[in-house]
Amino acid sequence: MSSPVKRARRPSGGRDALLETAVGEFIDRGYDATSMEDLSRAAGITKSSFYHHFAGKEALLRAALERAVDGLFGVLDLPEARTGSPADRLRVIVAAQVGVLMAELPYVTLLLRVRGNTETERWALERRRAFDAAVRALVRDAVDAGEVRSDVDPALAARLLSGTINSIVEWYRPGRPGTATLPEDVVRAAFSGIVPAP
Amino acid sequence: MSSPVKRARRPSGGRDALLETAVGEFIDRGYDATSMEDLSRAAGITKSSFYHHFAGKEALLRAALERAVDGLFGVLDLPEARTGSPADRLRVIVAAQVGVLMAELPYVTLLLRVRGNTETERWALERRRAFDAAVRALVRDAVDAGEVRSDVDPALAARLLSGTINSIVEWYRPGRPGTATLPEDVVRAAFSGIVPAP
Repeated sequence: MSSPVKRARRPSGGRDALLETAVGEFIDRGYDATSMEDLSRAAGITKSSFYHHFAGKEALLRAALERAVDGLFGVLDLPEARTGSPADRLRVIVAAQVGVLMAELPYVTLLLRVRGNTETERWALERRRAFDAAVRALVRDAVDAGEVRSDVDPALAARLLSGTINSIVEWYRPGRPGTATLPEDVVRAAFSGIVPAP
Repeated sequence: MSSPVKRARRPSGGRDALLETAVGEFIDRGYDATSMEDLSRAAGITKSSFYHHFAGKEALLRAALERAVDGLFGVLDLPEARTGSPADRLRVIVAAQVGVLMAELPYVTLLLRVRGNTETERWALERRRAFDAAVRALVRDAVDAGEVRSDVDPALAARLLSGTINSIVEWYRPGRPGTATLPEDVVRAAFSGIVPAP
């Protein structure tokens, strides 16, 4: 994977197209309520063709959640997210996290709905928590460095930040007017206010 | 209803206790997957006792969603939310909205999960949209009055604001340490930044 934000769409070959169809069904019907039967029908192929690409429903879930998790952790690995002041790194991470959410919308949406009923879901939850912990540590560093106001509880700030970013999946759709600069808009909202004084 | 924020808990008599049990089950299992059988079992009463209080599952959903919707619209009706400058009214509304979310957590959680599959759900969605439209209009008024920076698209600001507030249901639990001043903390985050410069 190159940049998690500008990642090129892979050619919509067999496996990726099936994964995308499955994620759409999981989001619409709920993972538990979706059968391999439903998935084959939605993809317009036979169940055995489906099994040729994926061992089963949980393998699909795992592949989908890995794609979202890889995108998120790719953000933390960006060179600009690893050097510089804590506040500058936080700016880079917030913008790139919004970028991943926009580029990988269905996968991130699925990740945010995970509740931990299967081994795969518990793994994904643990990865989400690790990502949030990394951001929380960075907010704490920014407070310690005097770059962020100390009347903010870093844990609460990190929760509100992640809540603000994640809520975007509720309304964002690719190409939606007014969202071309969403990553920078969210950075500004986080550092200056959603409704800042002039 | 007096203040939506300081609303006193009603005595946990029959009807209210059943409603609270039902909302918990709806949240855990999903509304569609919950039967009156499940609800009676969870409440520890017979199905016919349950029907004595509520005509059925959708009546329970309606009562639960009405409680959340009444709480939200009660915020818009607060005297301090109806007079003063747009920015001041917005401050009052944000704080009171967070207060309602905290006081009516399960009911607001259920409202935020509604997807519009039944007539009751479509009604609740329409009410949510009306609430959001009222806040969006107020953000717009604050921009027009020069109280809020005009480089913010009012529609986007209103979405981020509502996303930030609503995301609190994901982690807030009554009595959680560090949440005593949550309404004011969210107001400060909205107007000055979640991670503001010193």
